[in-house]
Amino acid sequence: MSSVSKPRAAAPEVSGTALVSPWPVRKNTQRNRDVKREAVIRAAAQAFNACGYHNTSIDEIAAALNVTKPTIYYYVANKEQLLLECILTGLERVLEPFRRPREDGVTARVQLNRMMRHYAEAIASEYGWCMVRAEDLGLAPASLWRIKGLKSEIDQGIRRLLEEGVRDGSIQTEDLKMTSFALAGALNWIAHWYRENQSMTPADIAEAFIRIFNLGLVPRAAAKPSRRTRARKEHIQ
Amino acid sequence: MSSVSKPRAAAPEVSGTALVSPWPVRKNTQRNRDVKREAVIRAAAQAFNACGYHNTSIDEIAAALNVTKPTIYYYVANKEQLLLECILTGLERVLEPFRRPREDGVTARVQLNRMMRHYAEAIASEYGWCMVRAEDLGLAPASLWRIKGLKSEIDQGIRRLLEEGVRDGSIQTEDLKMTSFALAGALNWIAHWYRENQSMTPADIAEAFIRIFNLGLVPRAAAKPSRRTRARKEHIQ
Repeated sequence: MSSVSKPRAAAPEVSGTALVSPWPVRKNTQRNRDVKREAVIRAAAQAFNACGYHNTSIDEIAAALNVTKPTIYYYVANKEQLLLECILTGLERVLEPFRRPREDGVTARVQLNRMMRHYAEAIASEYGWCMVRAEDLGLAPASLWRIKGLKSEIDQGIRRLLEEGVRDGSIQTEDLKMTSFALAGALNWIAHWYRENQSMTPADIAEAFIRIFNLGLVPRAAAKPSRRTRARKEHIQ
Repeated sequence: MSSVSKPRAAAPEVSGTALVSPWPVRKNTQRNRDVKREAVIRAAAQAFNACGYHNTSIDEIAAALNVTKPTIYYYVANKEQLLLECILTGLERVLEPFRRPREDGVTARVQLNRMMRHYAEAIASEYGWCMVRAEDLGLAPASLWRIKGLKSEIDQGIRRLLEEGVRDGSIQTEDLKMTSFALAGALNWIAHWYRENQSMTPADIAEAFIRIFNLGLVPRAAAKPSRRTRARKEHIQ
């Protein structure tokens, strides 16, 4: 029987301690593959940023990694899938804090600030440009649908945090949808102006944005209630 | 002489009152031309929004106006110039309040709120999509340079208002550049999500954004200084 002719590993020693398999750990192989796949996607994102999606070839991405074109095709089917993966990678990073279980005693506003840090990091990364450009690059409807789903998840996540914040008293807002759009707009726009070689890091940008959105532009120094009331009235002039 | 054969208008009656020319008023002709040119640019913006820049032909723009292709070429040299004009029209609308002389006694914050209303109107108009897309559509370097100049004028105008607001006490901010970028980002992003048939008007959106940016997300209700101090500390968590 063919199964007999296959080389077989020695039976693992069974002792009181946990069983250790002598075969190569499949998880590591998988991790190795994941690391390489991530490098391919990252190289694609960097190339798309530098030269634009339509001006970048799979050959150039392969050259940047010192591999051949077939190596790239081992990880992705085509350039369109590479673009899709770049977008999904960025969006998943933004979604990370929404998917993590919330620590006890953390207000929704503190959680919102954490989300802004993640968002700023993702959008200032090499994936940012792809994340805000998806709709114009001719992706297939199924891909666009997947992207739309994740973007909607982000929007709903922000609105839910805002709603919770209004409930726990840590946030004031009269319009969840507009606040979510203002936040996402300011954050998404980072992809339009941020360049890696500038003095501010993504973390610095996040802190500046958190300060602006948290405190607002109307001075908070007013000590007397009368001045606060005036500020509230004046802001809509 | 040929000049004699040309029909000549009767000499205008000269009286004590102002002279009225019997020739067609040139200004009106010019205005008429301007109105038609504007209609051409507007039709182009609507077509670019609906079908994308690369998918729109001059023929389609002409058809939308019930005119022939040569009529369009009477106003613009080519499709690229049409796109440029769409972008410039939108940017000029945003710049309008910066170029108007300021009324006495108006704080910089009130002026900033006015600017936000203009900005929201411009970006939610048919020109909005072109305004935020210029860099990807293959415009000539000279056109991109002109657009960059106007965008920089807008950014500088916002920063100047913020600076004046800090000086006149109507605005609090620690970072003029980041505040300008957050404001412009939130406003520019309107072009990505706004559709004419939705319930909110551009004016509604502007008011919502003014409220968010003016008041901030940290509740302002705190009466005691101690709570205000706490809010200030907590916002960076």
